[in-house]
Amino acid sequence: MLEPKPGEDSGTGPGPLLIKEQGSFAAGGSVVQHPGTFDPLKGTPDGQTLHGDHACVHYQIPENPRRFPLVFVHGALQFSRCWESTPDGREGFQSIFVRRRFPVYLIDVPRRGGAGRSTLPVSITATPDDQYWYNLFRLGIWPDFFPGVLFPRDPESLNQYFRQMTPDTGPLNREVIADAVAALFSRIGPGVLVTHSQGGGVGWRTAIRSPNVRAIVSYEPGTSCIFPEEELPEPMHSCGGTIAAVGVPLQDFLQLTKIPILIYYADYIPEEPCPNPGQDVWRVYRAITRLFVEAVNRHGGHARIVSLPDIGIHGNTHFPFSDLNNTEIADLLSGFLAESGLDGD
Amino acid sequence: MLEPKPGEDSGTGPGPLLIKEQGSFAAGGSVVQHPGTFDPLKGTPDGQTLHGDHACVHYQIPENPRRFPLVFVHGALQFSRCWESTPDGREGFQSIFVRRRFPVYLIDVPRRGGAGRSTLPVSITATPDDQYWYNLFRLGIWPDFFPGVLFPRDPESLNQYFRQMTPDTGPLNREVIADAVAALFSRIGPGVLVTHSQGGGVGWRTAIRSPNVRAIVSYEPGTSCIFPEEELPEPMHSCGGTIAAVGVPLQDFLQLTKIPILIYYADYIPEEPCPNPGQDVWRVYRAITRLFVEAVNRHGGHARIVSLPDIGIHGNTHFPFSDLNNTEIADLLSGFLAESGLDGD
Repeated sequence: MLEPKPGEDSGTGPGPLLIKEQGSFAAGGSVVQHPGTFDPLKGTPDGQTLHGDHACVHYQIPENPRRFPLVFVHGALQFSRCWESTPDGREGFQSIFVRRRFPVYLIDVPRRGGAGRSTLPVSITATPDDQYWYNLFRLGIWPDFFPGVLFPRDPESLNQYFRQMTPDTGPLNREVIADAVAALFSRIGPGVLVTHSQGGGVGWRTAIRSPNVRAIVSYEPGTSCIFPEEELPEPMHSCGGTIAAVGVPLQDFLQLTKIPILIYYADYIPEEPCPNPGQDVWRVYRAITRLFVEAVNRHGGHARIVSLPDIGIHGNTHFPFSDLNNTEIADLLSGFLAESGLDGD
Repeated sequence: MLEPKPGEDSGTGPGPLLIKEQGSFAAGGSVVQHPGTFDPLKGTPDGQTLHGDHACVHYQIPENPRRFPLVFVHGALQFSRCWESTPDGREGFQSIFVRRRFPVYLIDVPRRGGAGRSTLPVSITATPDDQYWYNLFRLGIWPDFFPGVLFPRDPESLNQYFRQMTPDTGPLNREVIADAVAALFSRIGPGVLVTHSQGGGVGWRTAIRSPNVRAIVSYEPGTSCIFPEEELPEPMHSCGGTIAAVGVPLQDFLQLTKIPILIYYADYIPEEPCPNPGQDVWRVYRAITRLFVEAVNRHGGHARIVSLPDIGIHGNTHFPFSDLNNTEIADLLSGFLAESGLDGD
């Protein structure tokens, strides 16, 4: 274990967080302009611009920071908040890793949350879907929790969990997102990218764009795993639908062989096909990701995939970093950063 | 002036912020349910719920906090970020007042930013309108800045400013918003509400709902000023359109007479009608707000309206709290809190 430092829990409860600098800014993005000439008396779109498709970044730099910042990219329907507080109000990875003296950058990806200005329109339908996500995020099979699941059982925690979702405010486009995340790395320099779920596909694409991505830790990457075009696996079938990988030029893929990659999948994912789509889809995502890890390593890379139950950690949902054992999950991340030489001052 | 405390600037540059506790949560909101019964194998809307219309709240509680927290409600197209960092990357009111030992709560109002889940649908058109807002936020008349305006002139600051906008993700409804802000005050207890622009109308409605609102400071409240139904002023005309006040039952209005209210308007607002809608609309908002202040005081209240140029502070835009002199603007707020007895421990 790391020795407690100022701001860390020394066994008598945590002291204050010591924040050298904090704030928010936009990273990347594009500008579109309506034809014509702007007339201030009319205010019509003629000649006006729209600045959109940027990421919104919240950052905290602790006192005596370590050298490499951690950059967090959320998954589908989520935004920066999923790293801030847990549904039951405990500290999330933001505060945990600021206490461990890492500069922390939380992203709202383009067209989500505070990065809501999109250069393309969208309709938000407000269609009820909480139970669909409850099942897909593997809290259980609605209305039941999985036995032993590390999610708090009080109704208010579930209320908070549902309310940490927020819709897309433009069409989902991982290339647009990766452009913005790469722009952040251009601004801050070398760092470690931590992704979740839908953010996984963003992470691979960001590392292709930016040599400043020095490692990737990905919690349950979902859709949009990438492979060399010539080595694309066949689409795979879950009871929820067919899932295809995406091909990229080999030269791009090889960027992923240059950095350590660590991927976690959590509990309640079957090895054999199962009739609950909320579980079966993760069986297939994990299977594709295993092939991805093989492909990276076949080309000389250093990728690992860990199923948490295989190392004795049971009960985690799709959100290990905010589950009841999230400090244990954080310790695993700290261990990876230490063994990769990425936690120095 | 207040004596410097740990974390405040003591003249040799600021020390670290000392954060006892920080995080985020949802406040208020409602739940809608689609008719029918949820079937996990299908995932259709049948029987599913949607948790929406909550506020998203980010909070920081400093070491040795003062008693009354400050709750910040943004304006149109803005979200919590407008209080975090200025467009040129300086500390916003969030960090400034945490350094001054106030617990700070930043809100994304329902259907904006991280509080994106709306119970009603909306279409986002992605219509270019940066120049419209540039004029309405009184940086100048596009493409010119006003002479002496306290906005940074580097292009990146303007880029950041445009990108701190984010669209409505549901229909704008001040009653829904005030319900959520009042729910926050139920959770945190007595505090001071600080509003901006469109948030002004929310603030009055929140104080009607919650006796925990112990004072309101409002920067340039815009639409939706309220009056007793029997005392509603005539609609007023600006060159950008007609602006009407809103009537509420006298009994509700009287809640506003029980707390100190301080309202600021900034520079570049004419006294006489002017042909630029971006300025003229504020002439009318300020005129209506002057009548509002008179109405509050006529019923025994304690409201004040201050034009910053009248007290010798020139060059401010619609965003005094993030302009180049924002620490001076913060000092005014500190002074108000002190004289109102709201800055004690």
